[in-house]
Amino acid sequence: MQFTSERLDGDVLEREFTLGEIPGTLWTPGSAAPVPLVLMAHNNGLPKSDPRLVARARYTAARGYAVATIDAAGCGERPRSAADERARTELRRAMQAGEPVDEIFESFIGPLVENAVPEWRTTLDALLALPGIDGPVGYSGGWTALGIRLAVAEPRIKAAGFFAGGYVPRAQREEAGQVTIPLLFLLQWDDEGNPRERALELFDAFGTKEKTLHANLGGHTGTPWFELEDGCRFLDRHLK
Amino acid sequence: MQFTSERLDGDVLEREFTLGEIPGTLWTPGSAAPVPLVLMAHNNGLPKSDPRLVARARYTAARGYAVATIDAAGCGERPRSAADERARTELRRAMQAGEPVDEIFESFIGPLVENAVPEWRTTLDALLALPGIDGPVGYSGGWTALGIRLAVAEPRIKAAGFFAGGYVPRAQREEAGQVTIPLLFLLQWDDEGNPRERALELFDAFGTKEKTLHANLGGHTGTPWFELEDGCRFLDRHLK
Repeated sequence: MQFTSERLDGDVLEREFTLGEIPGTLWTPGSAAPVPLVLMAHNNGLPKSDPRLVARARYTAARGYAVATIDAAGCGERPRSAADERARTELRRAMQAGEPVDEIFESFIGPLVENAVPEWRTTLDALLALPGIDGPVGYSGGWTALGIRLAVAEPRIKAAGFFAGGYVPRAQREEAGQVTIPLLFLLQWDDEGNPRERALELFDAFGTKEKTLHANLGGHTGTPWFELEDGCRFLDRHLK
Repeated sequence: MQFTSERLDGDVLEREFTLGEIPGTLWTPGSAAPVPLVLMAHNNGLPKSDPRLVARARYTAARGYAVATIDAAGCGERPRSAADERARTELRRAMQAGEPVDEIFESFIGPLVENAVPEWRTTLDALLALPGIDGPVGYSGGWTALGIRLAVAEPRIKAAGFFAGGYVPRAQREEAGQVTIPLLFLLQWDDEGNPRERALELFDAFGTKEKTLHANLGGHTGTPWFELEDGCRFLDRHLK
């Protein structure tokens, strides 16, 4: 893992890194004591520099966590194949037109999730080898399908916060029952891009005995600020 | 309003009172500064001395609120007519047998809600006349139907936390759209006595633009402790 730049924002140190081909960002708080780690992922289509992700990461780091995110292969700012670009364009068009997107989703997002998991695990190995970062590990992210896959595959992850999750590939909907770590599932009640019924079904399907749903009125980007604090309090209960 | 007994529990003063025929309890924190008031109601069948209500009231008072509850006419420990007793017995039997209870609910609970509202408003008048209690006022309670009625009828109530609400009389389901104050709606995902679909429909029906749903796994009495803190933080946002 090589750090390529760093910047101090208040008490939070923000460092860009590369790990082989993987570009990532790590936010750490000012304290010298070891802190738990939170893997923070955004929707696969958005880059790790997305302002909403960065704001969540800084807030969480200031609350005493190391927070890391990466752009996995084919995601965020990393190169995409022409086929990927066509699939993304078609997915966007179909969603805007209100057409069924399940098949595009399966054939495009399904493999993206599968391929992202090894890169996230490699990143996790490297992060936990850094001084000042201590287990346990949490996941917090808008990319619910990746979170489900990681929660099932990666025993070091002890708690997870998911956002929305109406559209999740079949493989992850089917393995939701195998997720047994504590969950906070955040839902926007009128999310145009995430059908409410599916999100509620997914919440119902998780195998964990300790799961909480928070739903707020409004569309996809309308999550109220206090959910950021609630998310940290959830992590505090399980990682500190 | 006459205080009939008092007891100090840590920093919280617990006083029993009577207001005409209405018996009530008031919890106030140690601080001398005026505090907001929370009206805390339980399911109409349970007395104001119910241990879960008392625990919630003490916790909330320790967080800087005056908290008051009453047994309204026909509720809690107050005398019931023979007809009331028969209706309660029949309601309990039908719910345990899994039979439809809507009609019993309408004919028995409906009038109970209507009759309780004037007594709660009279109590509110008397409480706000006490030194050290200041507006604004919140409602927090497991008796969702009463909360809806009060939220619509009583402009001094500025925020409300409701619990469950699968069974709510038709009149209150219909006036849910007129509730425009901020709401926190708490739901147990597997509540044997409150059908989930109905509770979700009720959440959807509230007219307020600022409503949050919290759902946790488990049955009616399984609400996790952290919801008590979340409830106070919700009140803090709107009453302090």
